Amino acid sequence: MTIKISIDCMGGDHGPSVTIPAAISFVKHEPEAELILVGLEDVIRAELKKHKADTHPRLSVLHASEQVTMDDPLEVALRRKKDSSMRVAIEQVKSGAAQASVSAGNTAALMAVSRYVLKTMSGVDRPAICSILPNQKNGPTYMLDLGANVDCEPHHLHQFAIMGSVLVSAMEGIERPTIGLLNVGTEDIKGNEVVKLTSKLLQADHERGALNFYGNVEGNDIFKGTTDIVVCDGFVGNVTLKAIEGLARFMKDVLTSEFKRNPITMLGALIARGALKAIGNRLNPSRYNGASLLGLRGLVFKSHGSADAYSFEWALRRAFDAAKNDVQAHLASMIAELMPRTPVPDEPTSTSSTI
Amino acid sequence: MTIKISIDCMGGDHGPSVTIPAAISFVKHEPEAELILVGLEDVIRAELKKHKADTHPRLSVLHASEQVTMDDPLEVALRRKKDSSMRVAIEQVKSGAAQASVSAGNTAALMAVSRYVLKTMSGVDRPAICSILPNQKNGPTYMLDLGANVDCEPHHLHQFAIMGSVLVSAMEGIERPTIGLLNVGTEDIKGNEVVKLTSKLLQADHERGALNFYGNVEGNDIFKGTTDIVVCDGFVGNVTLKAIEGLARFMKDVLTSEFKRNPITMLGALIARGALKAIGNRLNPSRYNGASLLGLRGLVFKSHGSADAYSFEWALRRAFDAAKNDVQAHLASMIAELMPRTPVPDEPTSTSSTI
Repeated sequence: MTIKISIDCMGGDHGPSVTIPAAISFVKHEPEAELILVGLEDVIRAELKKHKADTHPRLSVLHASEQVTMDDPLEVALRRKKDSSMRVAIEQVKSGAAQASVSAGNTAALMAVSRYVLKTMSGVDRPAICSILPNQKNGPTYMLDLGANVDCEPHHLHQFAIMGSVLVSAMEGIERPTIGLLNVGTEDIKGNEVVKLTSKLLQADHERGALNFYGNVEGNDIFKGTTDIVVCDGFVGNVTLKAIEGLARFMKDVLTSEFKRNPITMLGALIARGALKAIGNRLNPSRYNGASLLGLRGLVFKSHGSADAYSFEWALRRAFDAAKNDVQAHLASMIAELMPRTPVPDEPTSTSSTI
Repeated sequence: MTIKISIDCMGGDHGPSVTIPAAISFVKHEPEAELILVGLEDVIRAELKKHKADTHPRLSVLHASEQVTMDDPLEVALRRKKDSSMRVAIEQVKSGAAQASVSAGNTAALMAVSRYVLKTMSGVDRPAICSILPNQKNGPTYMLDLGANVDCEPHHLHQFAIMGSVLVSAMEGIERPTIGLLNVGTEDIKGNEVVKLTSKLLQADHERGALNFYGNVEGNDIFKGTTDIVVCDGFVGNVTLKAIEGLARFMKDVLTSEFKRNPITMLGALIARGALKAIGNRLNPSRYNGASLLGLRGLVFKSHGSADAYSFEWALRRAFDAAKNDVQAHLASMIAELMPRTPVPDEPTSTSSTI
């Protein structure tokens, strides 16, 4: 079975110099993959040639004349750059030419363009962004929403839980992944009103065997790996994720500066450099690159903007696995089962996308 | 000028074995301090004797027959253990026998008992918990609320900003500390409704020179040290703080296990042990121990439950400095100026305290 993935080759901090080598490596490792490389044709072909892959049968080039930058306001990404590599890549999913799309571009723009082009799944009120964090059990903790929805009602969080559960099942092969509801304490009486009501919805699903709801979890449970999935609204998720990234950067800076302080500490760091590298890999694993935009009528994955080729290849891997495991069909059937479409109308081009 | 501090000597993970040595060391370093040691008299006197401090003129013992444990439900702390060391220590502030109180006990119980005994300040709807985090500028970032209020209206966040500003002014000697509003992006259009409305209130105060409002900040700004104060609701604050603590613990475990992996990495760690210690001190500075319970009719400080004597002494230092710098009077006048009492009634024994 061939899986076709469209790649926004111009997105991210490094553009084609990262996305093309990643694509070449990926088709080499994955015989079932066919990749559509979207962006400035000349640039992409030159990069392919440089890597002696310009005639690879499973790499095709699709020209797009524009590019969404990291600073482009949503309006520009949505309405002005209609021939952006990001949009054309997503359009391949819409038309069925690709089963999934991957971009390292601006998250808010990617979500907005994806919603605009693909539309929201039936039964889902709002798409969400689901990312993966490493945990102390050496496994992944899936967390959503990470910033697409800053004001959430209980039924939104409920949908996030369902979507997260389907994704983890398909991607990790866990039949009944555990769902934790992010809260300020584990007892039922804890939390704000939205969380308390969400807990009741999830508990009801749990009791009839539809979802595996663990209960409330706290901030530290993300890293403990208490549950496979942590559900929260996009405000809390975004702030938490950025605080985590901020602390990680701070710790890295402190580590670097303290080890460089004098010849003795430098010697220590030199001797222990294998350990220091292993620490980096444990805490920021490349294999966890690739956040899912869930709840759209098509699969879209977001790579870190700063990803290198190795890391971007993991985002391709995630998109490929999601398409191969038919996440989209599983999502549709689970949503249909648990979440009859609510009458609340959705705003397809809301500006609430925020990462 | 003598400053009297009452100490809940039985609170925290270690009780008198930590609180008493810390108290002894503090009176030695601070000639203006007089400490009231509250708890089981026999135990406290035995600990004092052990350290040859049983006759110190500035250490007095006040017996309290009960103790609030880390697991006690709020109801037990509030209504059943009326002679707890925590409560008796706070009552010393109420009666004027002490100018501030310090406890390493259960945060939710400490907030509930403090609210019950001291009551909320005039003009303040809800007390908040303000803690300090280290930042990349080598300074402190004050953050509030960290869990006392999980459902906040704009006027609550506004009050937190005022209280945080007064605290930082008094404690750090910064005339116009900068205030950041925690959000999912820095632009004005970002955020949920509560945050957007809060921003307008703070902007108005800024324009008339009453507060130094920087604008929106993101999760990573906490560690960048973009502003002196970061304001958020107790749900976001609590989740973020616990996620940060979880990541720090995870990183510490990874560091330890990777350095212990083989004789070479162990050698590296041994050689660089000064650097590793410095890293720990930079990231978890003892001098930042001591969260403030702000907005009560009296000063209460909370030490980490796991604090050692050195760290607990810093919590005493913070309580002493706050009392000496008359934080309470500054708070009252600033609140009176900026925040005429709103007609919304407050729930003095709400169960929304959560840390």
